[in-house]
Amino acid sequence: MDFSSFLTSLGTSFIIFVVLMLLFAWLSRKPGNDVIYYPNRIIKGLDLPESRTRNPFSWIKEALSSTENDIISVSGVDTAVYFVFLGTALTILLVSGILLLPTLLPIAITDHSVKKNDTTSNGTFSQLDDLSMGHIGQKSPRLWAYLIAVYWVSLVTYFMLWKAYKHVTELRATALMTPEVRAEQFAVLVRDIPPPLDGETRKEQVDSFFKAIYPDTFYRSMPVTDNKMVNKIYEELEGYKKKLVKSEAVYAQSKTVGNPEGVRPTNRIGFLGLIGKKVDSIEYCNEKISELVPKLETEQKVTLRDRQLPSALLFFTTRVAAASAAQSLHGRTVDSWTVMDAPEPRQLLWSNLSLNYYSREVRQYVIYFIVALTVLFYLIPIGIIAAFTTLKNLMKLLPFLKPVLKIIEIRTVVEAYLPQLALIIFLAMLPKLLMFLSKAEGIPSESHAVRAASGKYFYFSVFNVFIGVTIGGTLFGTLKDIEAHPNGTVKLLADSLPDSATFFLTFVALKFFVGYGLELSRLVPLIIFHLKKKYLCKTEVDVKDAWAPGDFGYATRVPGDLLVITIVLCYSVIAPLILVFGVFYFGLGWLILRNQALKVYVPTYESNGRMWPHLHTRFLAALLLYQVTMLGYFSIKEFIFTPLLIVLPIATLIFTFVCRKKFYGFFQCTALEVAAHELKETPNMEHVYRSFVPPSLSSDKLDDDQFGDV
Amino acid sequence: MDFSSFLTSLGTSFIIFVVLMLLFAWLSRKPGNDVIYYPNRIIKGLDLPESRTRNPFSWIKEALSSTENDIISVSGVDTAVYFVFLGTALTILLVSGILLLPTLLPIAITDHSVKKNDTTSNGTFSQLDDLSMGHIGQKSPRLWAYLIAVYWVSLVTYFMLWKAYKHVTELRATALMTPEVRAEQFAVLVRDIPPPLDGETRKEQVDSFFKAIYPDTFYRSMPVTDNKMVNKIYEELEGYKKKLVKSEAVYAQSKTVGNPEGVRPTNRIGFLGLIGKKVDSIEYCNEKISELVPKLETEQKVTLRDRQLPSALLFFTTRVAAASAAQSLHGRTVDSWTVMDAPEPRQLLWSNLSLNYYSREVRQYVIYFIVALTVLFYLIPIGIIAAFTTLKNLMKLLPFLKPVLKIIEIRTVVEAYLPQLALIIFLAMLPKLLMFLSKAEGIPSESHAVRAASGKYFYFSVFNVFIGVTIGGTLFGTLKDIEAHPNGTVKLLADSLPDSATFFLTFVALKFFVGYGLELSRLVPLIIFHLKKKYLCKTEVDVKDAWAPGDFGYATRVPGDLLVITIVLCYSVIAPLILVFGVFYFGLGWLILRNQALKVYVPTYESNGRMWPHLHTRFLAALLLYQVTMLGYFSIKEFIFTPLLIVLPIATLIFTFVCRKKFYGFFQCTALEVAAHELKETPNMEHVYRSFVPPSLSSDKLDDDQFGDV
Repeated sequence: MDFSSFLTSLGTSFIIFVVLMLLFAWLSRKPGNDVIYYPNRIIKGLDLPESRTRNPFSWIKEALSSTENDIISVSGVDTAVYFVFLGTALTILLVSGILLLPTLLPIAITDHSVKKNDTTSNGTFSQLDDLSMGHIGQKSPRLWAYLIAVYWVSLVTYFMLWKAYKHVTELRATALMTPEVRAEQFAVLVRDIPPPLDGETRKEQVDSFFKAIYPDTFYRSMPVTDNKMVNKIYEELEGYKKKLVKSEAVYAQSKTVGNPEGVRPTNRIGFLGLIGKKVDSIEYCNEKISELVPKLETEQKVTLRDRQLPSALLFFTTRVAAASAAQSLHGRTVDSWTVMDAPEPRQLLWSNLSLNYYSREVRQYVIYFIVALTVLFYLIPIGIIAAFTTLKNLMKLLPFLKPVLKIIEIRTVVEAYLPQLALIIFLAMLPKLLMFLSKAEGIPSESHAVRAASGKYFYFSVFNVFIGVTIGGTLFGTLKDIEAHPNGTVKLLADSLPDSATFFLTFVALKFFVGYGLELSRLVPLIIFHLKKKYLCKTEVDVKDAWAPGDFGYATRVPGDLLVITIVLCYSVIAPLILVFGVFYFGLGWLILRNQALKVYVPTYESNGRMWPHLHTRFLAALLLYQVTMLGYFSIKEFIFTPLLIVLPIATLIFTFVCRKKFYGFFQCTALEVAAHELKETPNMEHVYRSFVPPSLSSDKLDDDQFGDV
Repeated sequence: MDFSSFLTSLGTSFIIFVVLMLLFAWLSRKPGNDVIYYPNRIIKGLDLPESRTRNPFSWIKEALSSTENDIISVSGVDTAVYFVFLGTALTILLVSGILLLPTLLPIAITDHSVKKNDTTSNGTFSQLDDLSMGHIGQKSPRLWAYLIAVYWVSLVTYFMLWKAYKHVTELRATALMTPEVRAEQFAVLVRDIPPPLDGETRKEQVDSFFKAIYPDTFYRSMPVTDNKMVNKIYEELEGYKKKLVKSEAVYAQSKTVGNPEGVRPTNRIGFLGLIGKKVDSIEYCNEKISELVPKLETEQKVTLRDRQLPSALLFFTTRVAAASAAQSLHGRTVDSWTVMDAPEPRQLLWSNLSLNYYSREVRQYVIYFIVALTVLFYLIPIGIIAAFTTLKNLMKLLPFLKPVLKIIEIRTVVEAYLPQLALIIFLAMLPKLLMFLSKAEGIPSESHAVRAASGKYFYFSVFNVFIGVTIGGTLFGTLKDIEAHPNGTVKLLADSLPDSATFFLTFVALKFFVGYGLELSRLVPLIIFHLKKKYLCKTEVDVKDAWAPGDFGYATRVPGDLLVITIVLCYSVIAPLILVFGVFYFGLGWLILRNQALKVYVPTYESNGRMWPHLHTRFLAALLLYQVTMLGYFSIKEFIFTPLLIVLPIATLIFTFVCRKKFYGFFQCTALEVAAHELKETPNMEHVYRSFVPPSLSSDKLDDDQFGDV
């Protein structure tokens, strides 16, 4: 890519950004769009900022003036931790840039030892290359400056990450010390319960086991049940209830217009409402509901009595007892009576709770293996799909398409885009696939599954986007060389780096200009909402569903940010200009997401900052990749002091190890010191207990006979 | 070594064994030797078996008829676990031998494909080689039998080790469930206490921290103090007390003989009692004692008040509370308020208790590094010592030896033996060095230090004795080959194995005939005892000290056994005859040590079988080494089905991992299920607390002011 096309691409992105910002300023002033731009505040019942109709840039002031405590109270600790991450990345890149840009750029420009046509962009002239390390001659003493720069970036990263980890630890501690009663702090999850004795129910078994150990603090237990059947009936019932409300609304609407009697809505009861007998919707729903209610009650009783699984939730009367139980070995072997802290009720993955120890372990390794294959060979399934979706095969499989495909224009388009289409579909499905795989590991909570999926996605992006683009096609050509000299990979990577610098500059710019522009303007949700409202929504509930803002989507957002960090770090010394782009990415990101956190997104769970160690480790993985590639790049430059860089990867490994040892324990479980803090009031244990009953099993009638214990 | 010298060496060992057995039969019948052959029973106040004076072989019957519970009640769970280890090794070798000997020996003898002068013993004729795998031709289909044998030995090992781990888990659980009150089950050790607030003592700080977390179960705390000074005074005082008793005994003895007045013993008070003023011993001691007693009391007060360290022992009123506290994270970071279960009072290493987290971690790695260097390069310091102790240097350093060394005979002997002497001294010092290093790691208990030292010694023996002898001098000659092809090491080892088979047959035979012969006959302790009794002992206490039997000495015994297992396993298929020797080693060992456990040794600590995971892992390390060398040896034989063996090392790694996951947790800490078992009586907490007060600090007067809390 030459300089002018780089500028063109940058300019286009910037124009799109400006257009999106203007759109946002215009659209967000219309009160009809409040549910799109302020859903979080509306749901929370807060006032909307008055200034929104006057000053279109007031959101910037509001975002900048909001404190960490504001974020915690509006959006929770997880969001605050995410901002610590954004802020840390921003500071690292800023502090690095302040030293690197004014020193490295002049050093590169004034070096004339490399002839112009030797530059990295395959002979094409490019002003950008003058600013990069590729412009420095081999063995030049100027490389000293670059070596010091590598050290500087690393040291800044260590320092900032250490500070951030300490800060996040405090955030987590404060959250866990809350004087409010939070149900999950009084509960633990027990898995791998051994088979009960004859004539003993699961509940009796669990109660007698734990009462012996915790005679004073054990409150009661809730056996995990197989809810598949009861959930099905419950969902069916809820569906009919919703339909009833909808039909009544339609009926009421039809009344007002001229016809005072109205038209009673009807529907067909066959497949998808397309075939079968026509019935009156209101009557039909009422009928179905009165049929399903007793069925649900019977099913609830059967489930609670006969479908108890070897897993249970336990409730303790104090936080310390629960926190301590979650950390202790209860059975003689690790595969029996496994206890861990309970996640929030809303993020429990019920179907995973009862998986036994071995099945969990085996699933985990099987899935790691599948993911490793996906990361390494993701091109192969796409190739297979592409092969199956060739024109010939398509015509064979779907003969009715034949006449259409015979038209020459359509044929050309289809032929050209089919493989790309397969690729795009696969990439779009990837997050869902990774989330499915993560849940299949047997993880008991949503937040943990999100972390697991995010980790998988990160390795996928780094491997396929970063390393894939950098080494690109050359890798396959030189595969034999790599086999002979495994160390060659690093050199190959280092060798290919400068060629792709401009590509990644554009990539990062695109990400923040277009990505964050879309994020702030919320064009897509806005359009979808208005379409839905106009054509689909019949009731208030429907409208509310149509504007529901969703959460941050960390499973894909975090790997995206980490990929940018990886790219920016790896190029920070080779092409220091990228630091400017990195600062923009995290600066704009921080600002715009601050606005979204305060006004838009509603988190679906709270894990009290458990995301942090995950972010921290992958940040360090990016740093390590950077240090190793720099080692390779310096040795290509034949700089004799290159071995001085060997210290850095070792330092990173030690730093990772020390951080893990020192801080990670508290992110795995609750420190008792923290759990021992006083509560505002004595917890209402009945309330705590009830909050864990899944909706399909909750019923007023049941409490006294089935769930109740002596 | 040819066949006849092998037989000679075997015969000599056997004759020594018979002589030692006869000596034992004769000596153990004499009542005057009871304290040597039955010290454990005497200390416990049990009757000595009557049969001992009649039937010299009754000990065999007694050893065989003793049950595991007998061992546990006489010698503790650790000893029982050691017998599980001996029994498991015995069974594995026995079951392997039953299949291997009748099949592999005929297969080897009847193969005539290898010519006699091609055999492994460098061309010398040897009947032993006919029985080994070296006698099988390359690519011979007979190798199938050997391949199956490798699988058989591995599978038997997995099965027996799994059974043993389960059994040991039960032993440990039973021991921990004891209805007796055992002080260490109510205590935990806290380290890394952060600096106290101003005006707060350590004790107040610890008490307020833990009372907040455990309001109901916390009893009291005992800050760890710097006892260096008080210990010094205490030891001085005890020394004088002992001396006083001795002097009085000497005085009393001198009275009876003719002289009714007796001779009052005297001593000099200067260096080592050799120079200085002569004083009356009894008077001098009394004087010193009355001088030291108040000094000790002052020092005790000062120590308890001013020398509190950032570490403490905590006492809980229930076992569950203590067990649970030992497993929980208390502080927000792992380097503060580290809690672990307390070892028995008698095995506490006081000076290590207060080391902080970082110092422990750093010490550990530094010591691993030192040990790795020792293992790898132990020849170098010996070489240096040898160089310094050449005749020339000796004469320079110690000129007064010159005339002696000029005598030609002495000169020859010294010249020949000086390097060997250095080697022997170094090897004799090694266990002490390793124990010193292990304690320097900051380990808080004796039993853990023993395990750590044993592990180090095991790696040292395997590396230097087994691999060293096998590869021997050839290694250095071919060092360049190894650098070029690192995989070559395994091949080299495999290649050298058969040459050393006879050496190791003799080595194992020597170990059990002479080693266990000496063990049973206790010749050395017997002689030392009689010498001491005659020339040194003045009082009853002196005599008792002289026959004190000591403990099993696992730190050197266990690595010795493990080395034999490594050798026998590695040769089990190459030279199956070694299985007979292995069975003898563990059979005789089991029998003779059973006798020693019942009648001789007195354990100095009880760790409830924590030794087992250590034994288990190293057993598996031996198996892994065996499998890898077999892989190398089969590939030298150019057997095309060799890759079938790759499954085995992988299976061993998985087996190790699974065992560790499943069982190890319970050996690190106490399962709450076990701790929750009922006690015979309510524990006397004052008693529990007092048992942890070190003798130098225990005093009746102190309890109410310093140690006492509100």
